[in-house]
Amino acid sequence: MSFNENLKNRIGKAEEIIKEFLPKEEGLQKIICEAMNYSVLGGGKRLRTVMMQATYELFGGKGKVVEPFMAALEMIHTYSLVHDDLPAMDNDDLRRGRPTTHVKYNEGLAILAGDGLLNYAFETAVKAFEYGEDATIVAKALKILATKAGIYGMIGGQTVDIESENGRQALDEETLLFIHKNKTAALIESSMMIGAVLAHASDEDIKAVEKIAYNIGIAFQIQDDILDVIGSEEVLGKPIGSDAKNEKLTYVSLKGLDTAKADVKALSDEAIEAILDYEKDEHFLSELASYLIDREK
Amino acid sequence: MSFNENLKNRIGKAEEIIKEFLPKEEGLQKIICEAMNYSVLGGGKRLRTVMMQATYELFGGKGKVVEPFMAALEMIHTYSLVHDDLPAMDNDDLRRGRPTTHVKYNEGLAILAGDGLLNYAFETAVKAFEYGEDATIVAKALKILATKAGIYGMIGGQTVDIESENGRQALDEETLLFIHKNKTAALIESSMMIGAVLAHASDEDIKAVEKIAYNIGIAFQIQDDILDVIGSEEVLGKPIGSDAKNEKLTYVSLKGLDTAKADVKALSDEAIEAILDYEKDEHFLSELASYLIDREK
Repeated sequence: MSFNENLKNRIGKAEEIIKEFLPKEEGLQKIICEAMNYSVLGGGKRLRTVMMQATYELFGGKGKVVEPFMAALEMIHTYSLVHDDLPAMDNDDLRRGRPTTHVKYNEGLAILAGDGLLNYAFETAVKAFEYGEDATIVAKALKILATKAGIYGMIGGQTVDIESENGRQALDEETLLFIHKNKTAALIESSMMIGAVLAHASDEDIKAVEKIAYNIGIAFQIQDDILDVIGSEEVLGKPIGSDAKNEKLTYVSLKGLDTAKADVKALSDEAIEAILDYEKDEHFLSELASYLIDREK
Repeated sequence: MSFNENLKNRIGKAEEIIKEFLPKEEGLQKIICEAMNYSVLGGGKRLRTVMMQATYELFGGKGKVVEPFMAALEMIHTYSLVHDDLPAMDNDDLRRGRPTTHVKYNEGLAILAGDGLLNYAFETAVKAFEYGEDATIVAKALKILATKAGIYGMIGGQTVDIESENGRQALDEETLLFIHKNKTAALIESSMMIGAVLAHASDEDIKAVEKIAYNIGIAFQIQDDILDVIGSEEVLGKPIGSDAKNEKLTYVSLKGLDTAKADVKALSDEAIEAILDYEKDEHFLSELASYLIDREK
């Protein structure tokens, strides 16, 4: 099976698992369940979800205990997009070609749907205690899920991002790396670390996986900055250099294009080499890392 | 010690515990920690927190494992107020005499501070796994915390409340009771049930506690509607009959004042009698229930 077929199959499987854990659209509160499901089912490549399962398998995991965590992480990722799109934040009307949640419903419901998804992520993850897995292992995974999504992870990154965008916080190299680490890398770290934890990986291996995920996350984000500068409008689907026009400091404007490209390669090589140390028969995760970083859009 | 002294001591103790678990105001994301702490430390009687600890003690709990859950529930209660106050929801500028979080900071930060508190509530509750308590007991408490706060609890009630306030959902008796049960009673159920669970109460007792908390919550809310009609402006601190003026359907407008009063008494008597069945030496929880319901403001 080619990597592309494998990826497609895995995305399809992840999609099924995510759907299985979504709330039923019923009861007097039906409208919020609809708004939550509308937000989650808006496409997206489910890459964090696929990475969690692939990492779980890499460390020998064979059960279904990872499934509620896969759905939970996708809910957390989705709620962050719903709240990011709000008028008081990025004020976006479209996401993946569809009206954003506050446009489709209304602002109050979009706030509540985001809250609902974040809360439901934990309701969903807590179901993992019912799969016959050691409760301390599930608790360890829950702790990672909560920490990487919060003020010492994604929310922290989002805070510093909007504060610097609004000119209330200076954007220097340290701040930019903080945003990339927390806004982008934290959920990738969460994804891969939870997969490893649930497969009973050693603390040493979990630490190694955190570093791999960090490298992938940062490389992915720098590549995003590079594509913004060199990508064609057609491929990228947004105006070239839109970040530059907004006078937004990016990794490229800070370090120059050549250094940025070299850094992506170094981070990517380090991550893939580390994954290859773990991979035996199948080379899916290492190819996924390469696919994520060497993309053209 | 009088009930009032006891209550005051317990509130003081709860306040200390809550503070202990709040995030430090440091790092590049310092501003969101400040906004979260500003929101939590805005006064409030910490009644859900006090009830959790009192229920824990009622069932013989003697440890500290209840403390992270006390702080977590207060964070959840607080985040719901921060988001309720937003312009897209109730649009309130003041809460307990202080500027609301979005007025003090800005709307984007208030959304993020609410998200941060909800997420941090779970980060905090997960710390309970480190207190040497049976992990399946802590998992059971976590499940209650998540469920009662979500779309099948508080968020569900808030959704139906704003939908009916905006005329998008008809407000009949079933809907009004749904709102009261979910928006108000659910967190009281969460508080008392978690206290009972962590003290290793039996499933039968946990179910009894849920009913007690439900009765207290509904009685509290009907009393709120009654006070709105009969309370004096001076005692209540808001215009008499403000709900009636807004043509808002309340329990009193639906059932009449006499029936509403009788229902409060019946719910309250049932709850207090059930608590007295459990109480041995100290009669704190039964007196707290009576204090909550028979209040004048």
